[in-house]
Formats: sequence, C-alpha cells, structure tokens
Amino acid sequence: MTKQEYNNQVNKALEYFKKANIVLTENEKNNVEVADFGLGKVNDIGLQLVVYINTDRVCAKEMVLLPYQTCAEHMHVPTNGQAGKEETFRCRYGKCYLYVSGEGNKEDIQGYIPPSDVSVFHEVVLNPGEQYTIMPETWHWFQAGPEGAVISEFSTRSTDETDVFTDKRLVRQTVIED
Amino acid sequence: MTKQEYNNQVNKALEYFKKANIVLTENEKNNVEVADFGLGKVNDIGLQLVVYINTDRVCAKEMVLLPYQTCAEHMHVPTNGQAGKEETFRCRYGKCYLYVSGEGNKEDIQGYIPPSDVSVFHEVVLNPGEQYTIMPETWHWFQAGPEGAVISEFSTRSTDETDVFTDKRLVRQTVIED
Repeated sequence: MTKQEYNNQVNKALEYFKKANIVLTENEKNNVEVADFGLGKVNDIGLQLVVYINTDRVCAKEMVLLPYQTCAEHMHVPTNGQAGKEETFRCRYGKCYLYVSGEGNKEDIQGYIPPSDVSVFHEVVLNPGEQYTIMPETWHWFQAGPEGAVISEFSTRSTDETDVFTDKRLVRQTVIED
Repeated sequence: MTKQEYNNQVNKALEYFKKANIVLTENEKNNVEVADFGLGKVNDIGLQLVVYINTDRVCAKEMVLLPYQTCAEHMHVPTNGQAGKEETFRCRYGKCYLYVSGEGNKEDIQGYIPPSDVSVFHEVVLNPGEQYTIMPETWHWFQAGPEGAVISEFSTRSTDETDVFTDKRLVRQTVIED
C-alpha cells in the first residue's frame, strides 16, 4: 500500500470517528493505524484503529470498519505464558456483523467465505450500544454493514504478532511502499 | 439514600451520557449504578456508572461525575491471588482532575482534603480525549470540573469489595432506603 493510500484510509477513519463523536488527541489522529493484512485490497479486507492503551494486562482500542469492510477470520492463542486474548466488542456507530465459531452456518455470508475448517459460525449483530465478548482461541471474523462501523474493543493485552489467521497469506503488519 | 434520590442521580447521569454521545441500551439505562459511599452526600462524594463488562481478566465502565463531585481517595490491592486492579481513565466529556500519589502537594485541593498519610499527590488534568493509567496499590482520587465529566475506564477485573478507602467510614455498597 502506498503512503498516499495509507493516508486516504486514515482520513476516512477520522471521518468515522467524528460521526461516532469519538474525541481523539492530535497525537492519536496522527497515529491512526491501517491494517491491510498484506492482501492489497484494504477496503475489502482491512481495518483502521487507534490503540488507546496496551499494557501487560489491559488493552483498549477504537476500531473503524468502512462499509462492508471485513476483518478476516482469526483467533487469539496463548502468548508468553498467558492465556489468549479475550476481547469485548462494543458497537458505537453503524452496524457490525460478528461471526464466532459455534452454532450457525458456514455458507458464503455477505460476500466473505471464512476459510477455516470450522463448520459453523454464530452470527451476532451489534448495533450502537450493543456488545459481545469473544473468549480466547475462538475463531471469529467481523464485517461492517452499509454505513460502516465504529467499535470499541476492551481486552487483555493485544499480541497481534501471534494472531492466527486461517488464510495463511494474511499478515498483521502493513507494508508502506515509498 | 432514598429510592427517589437514587433515581434522581440516575437521571442526571443519563443526561451526561447523552451530552457525551455515549449510546446505552435500555437495559444499561435501567441499571445505572449510583455510589454514595455511605456518607449520604452523594453530590459531594459520589459517582454514577455503567459497567459494560467485568470478567476474571477485563473490566470496562463508563463513569459520570457531576460538577465538582469527588470519588474519594482509595487504592486497589491484590485480590484472590491476582495483582491489584490497574485502570486507565479516558475523559470523554468535561474535565476530570485526577490526583495520584507521587509528586505534588497535599494541601486542600479544590475543596477535598485527601485523608491519607500520603504526603504528596500528582495532579493530572484530563480533557476529552486525554487519559491516564493508574497502577495497582496507588492512592488516588478524582473530581470533575464545573461542567462535570464522563470518563471511560479500561481495567483488569473490578473487585470493588476489596478497595481500600483511606476514610474508614466509606463503603462501596449503596444502601437504598424504602
């Protein structure tokens, strides 16, 4: 992704934070993170976020999903002797479709086919003010509705580098080309 | 505190959540918690809050402080074999004056005299979008400015029942009279 594409995504995210009435400091605005998971189609598979805090014990983030943008199927595994990451998603704006392994149907859901062997997913629809907690080592993926979504995440420590993606092409680190 | 006084505080808190553009579910609105710390002067020493989540590992809350309302000096100690609570306060609306043991001055600060033997406090002023992390076993207290404050808290598990207040008259459980 080029520097200009990256900045475009950041600016889109800032518009959503504004719509959701999330107040950010100038420093946070200048450090919005864009994840394209290495696929080069960030508006399909991607995510924009601001990490508020990430200590050994606690993490809090604010995430933006553009319309129909998807965060691909993954799970959080034990890291550095601690249990995998536990996370609660709370929708602040728009609509978030969250799919968690469990009861449900693995058919093509809204254009994204989860690649794992998990046979069934449970759909959770999050409207503003609604939330859901995902326990460690649980396959999940999520997608915004037509208006996009702003989602707060409250969790244990984020260790993105050990996240397991089902699609092995995916990487968490975004590469910015000159 | 009477049921009517309790409901009045809840309604005031709901106005602040609205000002801060915090979207709550009907269930959350019906379960806003009011803490008067047993002193019967909730508008001076008190707090209103909604607990989003409180698992063994993670807690997230939204707190309202009315104008100049103070959450009295306390600390979080180890509980059930886990280290004391670590918490990050993020101001969403208004202004929060946070006092944390460390450098500073223990004089009468804005009408509240912290009762502990801690000789010095460090003042942290939080405007919307600003945050501060309080490590376990650290004396702290906080107060809203003239416009009140709405504050998000991201933390490890809340174990209010083991919080240590310097003023031993204080209790965390609010008693509602008929």
